[in-house]
Amino acid sequence: MRMTTAWGTDGDSKVLRQVRLRRRNLRPDDIAVRVDYCGVCHTDVHSLDAHAEGLLVPGHEFTGVVTEVGSEVTRFTVGDPVAVGNIVDSCGVCAMCEAGQENFCREFPTLTYGGTDRHDGSTTSGGYAREYVVRDQFAYRLPAGLDPAAVAPLLCAGITVWEPLRSLGVGKGTRVAVAGLGGLGHLAVKFAVALGAETTVISRTADKTADARRLGVEDVVVSADAEQMAAARDRFDVVIDTISAPHDIGPYLGLVAVDGTLSHLGHLGPVTVRMTDLLVGRKKLTSAGSGGRPSTAAMLDFCAEHGITADVEVLPSAQVNEALDRLRRNDVRYRFVLDLSDLSGSAA
Amino acid sequence: MRMTTAWGTDGDSKVLRQVRLRRRNLRPDDIAVRVDYCGVCHTDVHSLDAHAEGLLVPGHEFTGVVTEVGSEVTRFTVGDPVAVGNIVDSCGVCAMCEAGQENFCREFPTLTYGGTDRHDGSTTSGGYAREYVVRDQFAYRLPAGLDPAAVAPLLCAGITVWEPLRSLGVGKGTRVAVAGLGGLGHLAVKFAVALGAETTVISRTADKTADARRLGVEDVVVSADAEQMAAARDRFDVVIDTISAPHDIGPYLGLVAVDGTLSHLGHLGPVTVRMTDLLVGRKKLTSAGSGGRPSTAAMLDFCAEHGITADVEVLPSAQVNEALDRLRRNDVRYRFVLDLSDLSGSAA
Repeated sequence: MRMTTAWGTDGDSKVLRQVRLRRRNLRPDDIAVRVDYCGVCHTDVHSLDAHAEGLLVPGHEFTGVVTEVGSEVTRFTVGDPVAVGNIVDSCGVCAMCEAGQENFCREFPTLTYGGTDRHDGSTTSGGYAREYVVRDQFAYRLPAGLDPAAVAPLLCAGITVWEPLRSLGVGKGTRVAVAGLGGLGHLAVKFAVALGAETTVISRTADKTADARRLGVEDVVVSADAEQMAAARDRFDVVIDTISAPHDIGPYLGLVAVDGTLSHLGHLGPVTVRMTDLLVGRKKLTSAGSGGRPSTAAMLDFCAEHGITADVEVLPSAQVNEALDRLRRNDVRYRFVLDLSDLSGSAA
Repeated sequence: MRMTTAWGTDGDSKVLRQVRLRRRNLRPDDIAVRVDYCGVCHTDVHSLDAHAEGLLVPGHEFTGVVTEVGSEVTRFTVGDPVAVGNIVDSCGVCAMCEAGQENFCREFPTLTYGGTDRHDGSTTSGGYAREYVVRDQFAYRLPAGLDPAAVAPLLCAGITVWEPLRSLGVGKGTRVAVAGLGGLGHLAVKFAVALGAETTVISRTADKTADARRLGVEDVVVSADAEQMAAARDRFDVVIDTISAPHDIGPYLGLVAVDGTLSHLGHLGPVTVRMTDLLVGRKKLTSAGSGGRPSTAAMLDFCAEHGITADVEVLPSAQVNEALDRLRRNDVRYRFVLDLSDLSGSAA
């Protein structure tokens, strides 16, 4: 086994502390990655809140450098900059995997942390660590010219909003609204604008109007203002709802145009829908999360071409608990990224 | 005012009795219709169950003959066979009405019964009556060659399933499943088969297998059989869920293919959805009900071309309470139609 250092908790405490962590020895198709930057996702907060026993090391959007490759690895060599997202393995043979939708793997994909390794049955530990060992197929080449710290959030927040935008055909002439301007939302806005869509932000207050304008949106609708919401009725072909707290989706469905779609992806708990909110206007409700390998690679190419990364606040990893606390209060514009260089425990 | 005879209730009783009913004198754009046949819809049962005070005369899918026309009516003359559905007026000027989606009228369409007349503010009374007075724009020419009794259910049940099938692009090569083989479901099957789709019925038991085969389906999946449901996972581009009782839609979303759609239209109460049921496979949930004028006319043309009508059990209108009771028990294959000729009170 290999040893590294990580931020984790092994019991009731919701406070992460520095822990020594074992990583597996490399299998023939594995690479070892020195983790440089890891984004802090709402899922990390939820996982921590729900955690009861055993070691939990969160983190599923990170970038770093390859430090060692398995005997059969041909895609990477030592020194390559790479990125890893929230899936690190899948069955590889079901219809979903064959279609490049490993995130929908019928045998369930192996999650980057809290997942079960398909070979040894161990529980996976995430990227709040100085080293990660991963199947080479689930690492992506880091695009040249982009800040590795600001790329990290693309691997979860980015792909989660990229997939619905692409599958719903967003492009020139599409009217897109992004509800909630946070980690997911600000990337959805950047993508929608770069794809050529007429993009609007729906925000609870007018606080983020200047930021939204800076990101290139044409309009901001304040959801607390009934008049503004009424004026925006039936206006958008696609609404990307990235709001992380549970909320009534009725008002947001009201903004969807006839035959349009609301993608509800910020909060994945059960949602109660009034069928008449869908019926009137033949509106559609869907959701999204993560993405397949081809789609993730395409997103990274798009980001390289358009110079898109996340707006991040980089903190030394020792400040991880502060980052989590501030994320709970949505006090971040727009994604915390941990700099793991303050941890020891990587071969390079 | 004009007088006719109807089946109604004016208070707490859930039993309909014969009542004398006023109809308005014809406005310039009205026609008077002698109602010959009126379908019995689940909505009639729900309306009756929810009814508290005032006169309720149900019925919103009927066929008959024009007996009188207003001074400005040019589309119809006395003696024309016509059909009327669940909408009898709309604002006519909003974006939805202009797009021919009067069922989505922003000022809300006037319902055939229990609605509020846009001119005199009176409450509308439905087609369980010998006469109906309606704006000529909301009456449709009865297709030649089709049984008027069996056409009546097309005007509500038919259009409700026709709109989603068309808007979801069902045709040759589409894999369609219809859940629930009742009034809505059997028409959805007939339409899907005639549109060239590979059509499957999902039914709680195997009881209706022979019937489903007779309607032209290629397969029947028994929803109570976990193995059959598992084998049908992710199989259908479109699932039309016509089940009239509240139910968990999770198992039916499981049958939807990647990027496919479930149209939940049999039960219009609130529905709780697990977002992961939508997320995995980018599945969409929508609903449908009624249709606009152009779509209704197109459906009737399609029915005439393909010889499609509802499978009906025609009862003298005096047996209306028996029909409602049996419908509550789903004891009908597949739609009751009342023959109103046992009522007096039409000019022709």
